[in-house]
Amino acid sequence: MAAEAKDRVLITGATGYLGRRLVKASLALGHPTFLLFRPDTASDLARCQMLMELKMEGAQLLQGSLDDRDSLISALKQVDVVVSTIAGDQILQQLKLVEAIKEAGTIKRYLPSEFGMDVDRMHHAMPPGDRVFREKRIVRRAIEEAGIPHTYISANCFAGIFLAGLAQLAIFMPPRDHVNVYGDGDKRCIWVAEEDVAMYSMLSVDDPRTLNKVVYLRPPANILSQMQVIEIWERLIGRELSKTFISEDEWISQMDKIPPFEQSAMAHFCHIYYRGELDFEVEGLAHGVDSSELYPHYKYVTAQEYLKRFV
Amino acid sequence: MAAEAKDRVLITGATGYLGRRLVKASLALGHPTFLLFRPDTASDLARCQMLMELKMEGAQLLQGSLDDRDSLISALKQVDVVVSTIAGDQILQQLKLVEAIKEAGTIKRYLPSEFGMDVDRMHHAMPPGDRVFREKRIVRRAIEEAGIPHTYISANCFAGIFLAGLAQLAIFMPPRDHVNVYGDGDKRCIWVAEEDVAMYSMLSVDDPRTLNKVVYLRPPANILSQMQVIEIWERLIGRELSKTFISEDEWISQMDKIPPFEQSAMAHFCHIYYRGELDFEVEGLAHGVDSSELYPHYKYVTAQEYLKRFV
Repeated sequence: MAAEAKDRVLITGATGYLGRRLVKASLALGHPTFLLFRPDTASDLARCQMLMELKMEGAQLLQGSLDDRDSLISALKQVDVVVSTIAGDQILQQLKLVEAIKEAGTIKRYLPSEFGMDVDRMHHAMPPGDRVFREKRIVRRAIEEAGIPHTYISANCFAGIFLAGLAQLAIFMPPRDHVNVYGDGDKRCIWVAEEDVAMYSMLSVDDPRTLNKVVYLRPPANILSQMQVIEIWERLIGRELSKTFISEDEWISQMDKIPPFEQSAMAHFCHIYYRGELDFEVEGLAHGVDSSELYPHYKYVTAQEYLKRFV
Repeated sequence: MAAEAKDRVLITGATGYLGRRLVKASLALGHPTFLLFRPDTASDLARCQMLMELKMEGAQLLQGSLDDRDSLISALKQVDVVVSTIAGDQILQQLKLVEAIKEAGTIKRYLPSEFGMDVDRMHHAMPPGDRVFREKRIVRRAIEEAGIPHTYISANCFAGIFLAGLAQLAIFMPPRDHVNVYGDGDKRCIWVAEEDVAMYSMLSVDDPRTLNKVVYLRPPANILSQMQVIEIWERLIGRELSKTFISEDEWISQMDKIPPFEQSAMAHFCHIYYRGELDFEVEGLAHGVDSSELYPHYKYVTAQEYLKRFV
């Protein structure tokens, strides 16, 4: 019997932060992997070079754009699975992709751009951080109404953005002298290396257990409070950091002094680090599955291993 | 007899376009390789991740900055060779590095940020493209007055920037339909893949033959006119491009209609593609050496191989 052919995967946003890692994971798992790139990418040196690197690793490039319906349909006809990483201000642009997937009618699984907190648990989110949740919910509802088979990846805290800086706002390497602690720093969070977010996502694309489910990425060794993360780092560098404990009220009172983008980040920090909203039981959730139940043998990067990279 | 220890190398601008390739080349050649990074890099996600990747490949990170003399002297005392890639508006910042190298007194070789045309051949350069040449000359003279052992790398046309787009302005992948040709497209240019620029540079840092010399990177198979490059691409894709031949007068008349940064690029194009100023004999130049004489066995990427990546 011939080996079963792997699903063909189309990735949009492939030169982005998560996108390029998804491409590598997809190729590593043996999926024929297609990247959609816009014609105007030709004038972006960094993106061109990234595309060429990914092509040299085995990806196939398709020119097209969400605003060019024909290019989109033609790309969709060449694949089985679509993974989108269209983020920031562009989340609702995915509605065009949802329409095209519906029209093509052949896509076996769609993973929209999620990769954060479970947006259906965040109806109460603080402004201005609520926008991203609201827009991702609009995309979810459009997918469900169109009857498109899907998987939503809830990736919790990206290690490069949250863990690398010990959860300091807009700091992406661990401080060696001083650290801000949110409340008592005791709320359990979940930290996931970006390469593992990519690999868990790609493991799920052809897994019947993840069909129409939310996959919560919860590497067991990485369910840790901020203080536990700080202690890991202190042990690694053999030195204690000075700490400023910031109350939730203080944190919120600082929010209106900074630009809107960071305000959103501060609002997310509130839910994660003060209110502990990543800390819930997945077992028993009708639409939820836990990555560690699905892929118990996958060797993820532990928080300790991740921080060790910076020593 | 013990193997001779390789020179220790400090690279500034290591997360930049050429910098990261220099780090990889330096590590590949077995040099203990140190990267200088500024404290404020901690808030730049992309640079932090790049630094961590280079660290995981074996580079050692040193925090410091050109404005912090003590950090600079302390970094210089740990190395034998310094390679700078400080570019754009920052070229004259290297004067601080030159001062510190002079003060440290232990650096065996300094490669300033050059990697383009030989600036001492460009006294006649057109504005506004002349600024970069003028500033690099100021750095050269400061190095020479301080008696610092040095090597200047003249890298000609970076493949990613010039060859990838068939020398179209601000286009970085080869067009498939139409191409602008400068004059008759017959002036000989020299196209060098960035990874080869990095490797030739690092091969030269401990080579007595390159001491106080300009090293001209001239891979023999890559000395080609624009039309020859276009023909290579046409053969690779099995299709002829339509061509617009642009006279030098037309080109110059378009210059004042665009932003200053691109005006500089257009001025450089004039010297390279209309006036053929990369096409000169190195043999007999008192201070010049040809990379193909120095490293005839190094397997560089040919223009044909480079363009094939895009097919």
